[in-house]
Amino acid sequence: MRLKVTISYDGSNYKGWQSQPHGNSIQQVIEKGLAKMHRHDVYISASGRTDAGVHAVGQVFHFDSELDITLDKWRQAINSNTPYDIYVHKVEAVDEEFHARYSCKSKKYQYRFSMEPYYNVHRYKYCTQLKRTYDIEKMMDAAKIFVGEHDFTSYCANTMEEQPNQVRTIYDISFHQEGDEWVVTYYGDGFLRYMVRMIMGTLFAIGSGTITAETAKEWLEAKDKRLCRFNAEPNGLYLMEVNY
Amino acid sequence: MRLKVTISYDGSNYKGWQSQPHGNSIQQVIEKGLAKMHRHDVYISASGRTDAGVHAVGQVFHFDSELDITLDKWRQAINSNTPYDIYVHKVEAVDEEFHARYSCKSKKYQYRFSMEPYYNVHRYKYCTQLKRTYDIEKMMDAAKIFVGEHDFTSYCANTMEEQPNQVRTIYDISFHQEGDEWVVTYYGDGFLRYMVRMIMGTLFAIGSGTITAETAKEWLEAKDKRLCRFNAEPNGLYLMEVNY
Repeated sequence: MRLKVTISYDGSNYKGWQSQPHGNSIQQVIEKGLAKMHRHDVYISASGRTDAGVHAVGQVFHFDSELDITLDKWRQAINSNTPYDIYVHKVEAVDEEFHARYSCKSKKYQYRFSMEPYYNVHRYKYCTQLKRTYDIEKMMDAAKIFVGEHDFTSYCANTMEEQPNQVRTIYDISFHQEGDEWVVTYYGDGFLRYMVRMIMGTLFAIGSGTITAETAKEWLEAKDKRLCRFNAEPNGLYLMEVNY
Repeated sequence: MRLKVTISYDGSNYKGWQSQPHGNSIQQVIEKGLAKMHRHDVYISASGRTDAGVHAVGQVFHFDSELDITLDKWRQAINSNTPYDIYVHKVEAVDEEFHARYSCKSKKYQYRFSMEPYYNVHRYKYCTQLKRTYDIEKMMDAAKIFVGEHDFTSYCANTMEEQPNQVRTIYDISFHQEGDEWVVTYYGDGFLRYMVRMIMGTLFAIGSGTITAETAKEWLEAKDKRLCRFNAEPNGLYLMEVNY
């Protein structure tokens, strides 16, 4: 049976999603728990990788199992075989054609940041602290440059060999406040490696006056990986939902 | 010169404020940083201890120093000699009679909890997760039992030898919401060991229907340490401010 699993995790303690030869990754920790239950290796496939320090509220992965367990028991079983910083929300039975990565229709990410003058020791892993004021109006305005269908070659880290098609559609980039924190929601059909962090880093550079919105637009149109050197910190980034 | 220092810290990584023979405490980490600057041991004295896992937004300590450093430089100096989870907000020069513990007039604590059905991996160190609904109205009502001047013998862990006077005044206990979380603010002239956590644990027991408000009141009046066995988790507790 193929199972679709929706999870959240605290990325602070991991070297990202993908299995690493010398480090604990979220994938390895979950696979270890599943191997214990199955008494053989189990491979899981996620909607996409998240980098070290990046969080998830609604990451999705799938795997195949021969075990005869009810869906609700599956949730408890995986939760009791994974650490406290990974949490299974939902386990669903899906048909054999479902693939967490290839069946994905759209994704939502959020980026959290604050502009308080003081460092907040309780939020350093969960929100990027700018510690001074950025021009939010300018950032909101510049965000429109990235909305729509674009070739994001300039705003991602994937090589052309790895990912020959770097065209993606961002449906919306919206800003809202939650207490002291700003939350930027990115909604699109798919995101390339570092894409959200590079766009967010560029918006910060515009908000601080380091570059203009026109420069950011020129970079997008140039499709040149050498141009953008901005990459916002991973700690503020959350994979919120994956839609099928 | 005597210096008064206001700091915040993430209590998750420490065995509490007070120096421990086999473990890193917040006091030890700060004293180590100060010893490095002074080239001799420096003893710091806080407004009071916090337990393992308890956080601070506005803890205060004092110490004496012969170093000739401007106040603003002091802030930077201590910050650069302490880890990322301890942050100095303010350093003030005070006269020799000032004592962080004995000069304290009042304190404010906050306790954060949530009642969302799902476990939140990003908040487990910072907010107590009840994972089901408690009767908040009942809790708010029962909180009034503890407001005013009372002998808190039944609601603290100090022995009578350690602390013969267990009379304290709570000026106010108030509830408010921040997003998904409830915040309970305790404001009083002083708090005994475990006092906030035992009162909070008792309010949870009332909110869940385990005991009645009348029982909690009888316990308070009985001045008997054997009665209350409730002690809310430390992770939701924050020392917010110390007033002089």
